[in-house]
Amino acid sequence: MTGLTEREIIRILTNRFSGQPGVPLGYNDDVSAIPLSSKTWIIVKTDMLVGSTDIPPGMTVQEAARKAVVATVSDFAAKGVRPRALMVSLGLPPPAKKKTVQDIARGLGQAAREYQCKIIGGDTNQADDLVIDIAGVGFANPKTLVRRNGARPGDIVAVTGPFGKTSAGLRILMARGKKDLAKYPSLVKAVRRPRARLAEGIFLAKSRAATSSIDSSDGLAWSLHQIAQSSKVGINLHTIPVAAEVETFAKDHRLSALELALYGGEEYELVVTVKQERLDDLKKRVPSLTRIGLVEKEPFGVVAHHGGKRIQVKERGWEHFT
Amino acid sequence: MTGLTEREIIRILTNRFSGQPGVPLGYNDDVSAIPLSSKTWIIVKTDMLVGSTDIPPGMTVQEAARKAVVATVSDFAAKGVRPRALMVSLGLPPPAKKKTVQDIARGLGQAAREYQCKIIGGDTNQADDLVIDIAGVGFANPKTLVRRNGARPGDIVAVTGPFGKTSAGLRILMARGKKDLAKYPSLVKAVRRPRARLAEGIFLAKSRAATSSIDSSDGLAWSLHQIAQSSKVGINLHTIPVAAEVETFAKDHRLSALELALYGGEEYELVVTVKQERLDDLKKRVPSLTRIGLVEKEPFGVVAHHGGKRIQVKERGWEHFT
Repeated sequence: MTGLTEREIIRILTNRFSGQPGVPLGYNDDVSAIPLSSKTWIIVKTDMLVGSTDIPPGMTVQEAARKAVVATVSDFAAKGVRPRALMVSLGLPPPAKKKTVQDIARGLGQAAREYQCKIIGGDTNQADDLVIDIAGVGFANPKTLVRRNGARPGDIVAVTGPFGKTSAGLRILMARGKKDLAKYPSLVKAVRRPRARLAEGIFLAKSRAATSSIDSSDGLAWSLHQIAQSSKVGINLHTIPVAAEVETFAKDHRLSALELALYGGEEYELVVTVKQERLDDLKKRVPSLTRIGLVEKEPFGVVAHHGGKRIQVKERGWEHFT
Repeated sequence: MTGLTEREIIRILTNRFSGQPGVPLGYNDDVSAIPLSSKTWIIVKTDMLVGSTDIPPGMTVQEAARKAVVATVSDFAAKGVRPRALMVSLGLPPPAKKKTVQDIARGLGQAAREYQCKIIGGDTNQADDLVIDIAGVGFANPKTLVRRNGARPGDIVAVTGPFGKTSAGLRILMARGKKDLAKYPSLVKAVRRPRARLAEGIFLAKSRAATSSIDSSDGLAWSLHQIAQSSKVGINLHTIPVAAEVETFAKDHRLSALELALYGGEEYELVVTVKQERLDDLKKRVPSLTRIGLVEKEPFGVVAHHGGKRIQVKERGWEHFT
């Protein structure tokens, strides 16, 4: 018997809990919102890290705890909202060792310092699997919150960095090959010490130049499709932003660098659309911002032109349930 | 090798994350708070339900999902705050069946309706264990929020209902004995369909008559000790509130009814202290409110007088990690 995919599970929940009055953001947006007044929404996001599926060999518990926070912060980054406080729900397999708990606390504290938010409470349970579920809470003016559905024809599609590092890094960690571990430190680091683009996301939102935004934790291709579908537009990429080390790694292993960049996941770059006339200005403040394509009127999905070839980018992404 | 207990784990986290500036409630209070203004705090609480430890035989997945919400709502109830919105983080063991996900959605929706709050988002993951982590969010005026540390000598100690049902019910479910399942429906129901005392908690907070409050999810004894320690007072019980069916069940099985009532858990009554002169008034609006003792000046822990005997109530409660 085959089980449901993660998307199918989310669809069941989305169908059940979408469209409620007084709930302004969709069930499946990067974050959720509770209106407090016309000027203030409470912004909430939870992200669950699970030991058996999210911690590859070679990643420490401290790194995993830090990454759990990064994953939640990244969703806030995509909407241009600073998370103020974090709640931590822990599931720990018995016997729970003192060092494990201290390492988790260290990783959480480290991430909270990096993103200037506070860990204010949580819950602890015994479980068969290590679970670190982070709930972030922040405030936003709904006018500056960057949604998924604001992309307009003529907008520039841009990303805050190159892609493919985590899918390559994950392969290196899973294979446990010492040579690759030494040869590609930046790919391994992308998995073990990811960064959320919080400062960039907040700047882009404040600038009012970003028309839509999403984080790329489900992969570049998936993120582009979400923006295209929510905004009812098409996306035409003039390039696929592959990291240089990923090109080398792909050649070494006879893999497709494009596949690694498009269909990876757990990557925390931002995928945004911005007003064409504002791009140069934005790049002065967010130097990593890279133009990769254009928003088009016809909602024909996502296509890319890369190395002289036309590629239909599939709506496929990071999947836990397969 | 023995592992840490749940309390020891919480102590490590509390030591690390307590006393931060701008964080007004302790890491280990029933809920956490983020000040938005002098009149409004955002109130947050997460509570994680884990399949292997929290779902006894005979409890359905739908009931478990409902209970996950009840556990979070109960913490809000203790502080007199209505949760407005809930976030749901799911961990599901593969293969994830459609019926399981639908049952979870049904249980969540049912609880959300009962307590008039909305499910606004969440996260889904593969895990070795079923995990339902609920984050609740609400608003409160800090002046009406009932803390754990406000009990004063002379205050009445009261509870919103009798105790021991869930610990008795859990024994019945674990033993899977058909006779007891039929004989004690209310004990089984206490486990499978618990209720949070939200209306009662909100009324007690609004009345300004409650000086301290806690929910009893870690057991009556533990809750009383938390109030005594936080408030730096002693508690003297003139009775231990044992449910009638628990007395019968205890006799049937040669168990101590007092032990079942004092040291159980996952019970969602409120344990409060109230101003003496207000008790009669409160009882008119919260008929289940039952006086069980007095707050005393000397912080000598919790003692009880029951059936002519003096009992030292131990600081012991519901523990996942043992």
